Amino acid sequence: MPVLRCSDNFPEAFQQALDVLSKRWTGLILFVLGDGPLRFSEVSERIQVISDRVLSERLKELEAEGIVERRIFAEVPVRVEYRLTEKGQELRPVYEAIGRWAHRWVAGAAEAMPECFAEARTDAD
Amino acid sequence: MPVLRCSDNFPEAFQQALDVLSKRWTGLILFVLGDGPLRFSEVSERIQVISDRVLSERLKELEAEGIVERRIFAEVPVRVEYRLTEKGQELRPVYEAIGRWAHRWVAGAAEAMPECFAEARTDAD
Repeated sequence: MPVLRCSDNFPEAFQQALDVLSKRWTGLILFVLGDGPLRFSEVSERIQVISDRVLSERLKELEAEGIVERRIFAEVPVRVEYRLTEKGQELRPVYEAIGRWAHRWVAGAAEAMPECFAEARTDAD
Repeated sequence: MPVLRCSDNFPEAFQQALDVLSKRWTGLILFVLGDGPLRFSEVSERIQVISDRVLSERLKELEAEGIVERRIFAEVPVRVEYRLTEKGQELRPVYEAIGRWAHRWVAGAAEAMPECFAEARTDAD
């Protein structure tokens, strides 16, 4: 089944999809946005290992890729929210699969994330 | 649900899993080995975009990670096969999900790989 008898473009397309996810912290950002729109400060709170500077860069890149959408609400003070586009939402099965694998195979991961993968694990069982 | 209220180790574990896949061509190698053991020359034939030097490096790295196993059969001439370990096989849902996403969202991918993702698409429908 997964034999690359298909056209030569396929490896490039597959790799291109991986390149989107592979940048450090991108997968995590998509993961936390998977639940719904969040403000910058809320994303930042949930992923404390990333500096605000890096988070801001990554969000801009994901916006350029059409994966994240930035919405500005004309309130006082102005509210800015980040949310996944349809293209971004459809990455969810990818990062859920990665989370399940990490849970089983990355040392220390299972103990680190019993709650956040409760749902993912039920899917797999 | 995907809210990182879990312990601080989780982001690192998640990222570590992504780091395994993110190296250029690693995902593709796992994808072609998903069908069963292959000799070096067979992997090389299926992924013609990678040089043998790079392929050899990647296979060694995957062996070191416990994802790919190299088996030597005492035949004449000696036969060397590469196969996924259990840890490697469990990455399959990850790269299948990536393949599906690429099929839909990466320009040109759908036309490039109608055959190789026939099964993957059926799963999703």
